[in-house]
Amino acid sequence: MINRVILMAKVRTQLVAWDDIVSWTRSLAEKIKSSGYRPDLVVAVARGGFVPARLLCDFLLIDNLISIQSQHWTEAAKAEDKAVIKFPYKLDLRGKKVLLVDDIVDTGESLSLAKEFITQNWNADEVKIAVLQWISPVAKFKPDFYHLEVKEWIWFQYPWTRLEDTYQFMKRMLSEESKYRKEWSYSEIVSKFMEWYDLDVGDEYLKGALRMLEESGFLRREGENYIVVYEG
Amino acid sequence: MINRVILMAKVRTQLVAWDDIVSWTRSLAEKIKSSGYRPDLVVAVARGGFVPARLLCDFLLIDNLISIQSQHWTEAAKAEDKAVIKFPYKLDLRGKKVLLVDDIVDTGESLSLAKEFITQNWNADEVKIAVLQWISPVAKFKPDFYHLEVKEWIWFQYPWTRLEDTYQFMKRMLSEESKYRKEWSYSEIVSKFMEWYDLDVGDEYLKGALRMLEESGFLRREGENYIVVYEG
Repeated sequence: MINRVILMAKVRTQLVAWDDIVSWTRSLAEKIKSSGYRPDLVVAVARGGFVPARLLCDFLLIDNLISIQSQHWTEAAKAEDKAVIKFPYKLDLRGKKVLLVDDIVDTGESLSLAKEFITQNWNADEVKIAVLQWISPVAKFKPDFYHLEVKEWIWFQYPWTRLEDTYQFMKRMLSEESKYRKEWSYSEIVSKFMEWYDLDVGDEYLKGALRMLEESGFLRREGENYIVVYEG
Repeated sequence: MINRVILMAKVRTQLVAWDDIVSWTRSLAEKIKSSGYRPDLVVAVARGGFVPARLLCDFLLIDNLISIQSQHWTEAAKAEDKAVIKFPYKLDLRGKKVLLVDDIVDTGESLSLAKEFITQNWNADEVKIAVLQWISPVAKFKPDFYHLEVKEWIWFQYPWTRLEDTYQFMKRMLSEESKYRKEWSYSEIVSKFMEWYDLDVGDEYLKGALRMLEESGFLRREGENYIVVYEG
């Protein structure tokens, strides 16, 4: 899971398609298979690990699938990052080998907390970590299995977080740009979004994000146009 | 989740693409929104509910995501179906509204067990069920939210269970067909698979399934051809 704070600036992005997810996860499954590691169950890190975890169950024919929610919280007062286990329930996994799955290792904070929690509280025999991307320059550890090592930081826009990312990206862009312009047509917003993020998420996500910004009171409609109400 | 036993015959199928999943889940999210139900957390039924649950978190902006594994087991001796909670852990969800998510309500056995478990053991204030498909003629209940009512039973081939389905379908087909023919070329297998299931899963899945059948000793390779070793 990636720290949300990073969304507060223009970022390098890469749109990830569903087909990418399938082929990346298939390649990850091949690596796990050839390593000889035979997990008894998959633990998905919520929320980023859910889709890769489900696909790994398919590719590795694993029936047992559970989840753990390990998340970053930015404490506003301290402006510092802390990972927490949100629902720290108990399980007995003695004698079991776990495959702990997330989308990406960024700093690795939330994943290493999840691993520690599973080892100490669920008593799993072994826990190995599998992810699609490993951002090696910032990560605190190297995952046991990864599809791709990323050497220059980039925002992977995964399909399961498309609305939330579009919403956050749009909000950031309009907050900044509203210094110069308050009223926008839809096509002006689309062009500016492409200029900022080079990310073609499609009309349904763009319009969905605009609707959410309207509902939250950040924007209001005037005829065909959008007015930024927010005062930064 | 659908009873695996059904895989033991030729079935009517529908290949579900990732884009279908996204638009179906978006429509499901719209229904939930307009109902006024505001869940505090999403509980995904493992394994079928993982992808729709993750997407609903995106479309509804819900942060809290956990899972429960409720599955059918066919007891061979009794030839009867029974749903069980695989990892019956404890949680305290007092004061919380739950959205319980699965891909499909077939008989509804596993989902209604999950709902009962969450209500009784996790003390959730309210549990509502959301699924992509509701097979109304066989389901024991009507889900609170569904994208599509299915009036004639059909096998939805979801993208997250493509390898397992292809493997099971292929195994069934070759078991039957091996009464008449033991040796197959790849293209003969592909044509027969289309004839049986009318399901174009693509070469990677077909070859993946064949490889698994080889690894399990059901098939062996002889040059370019596949020989069915299994004696039914």
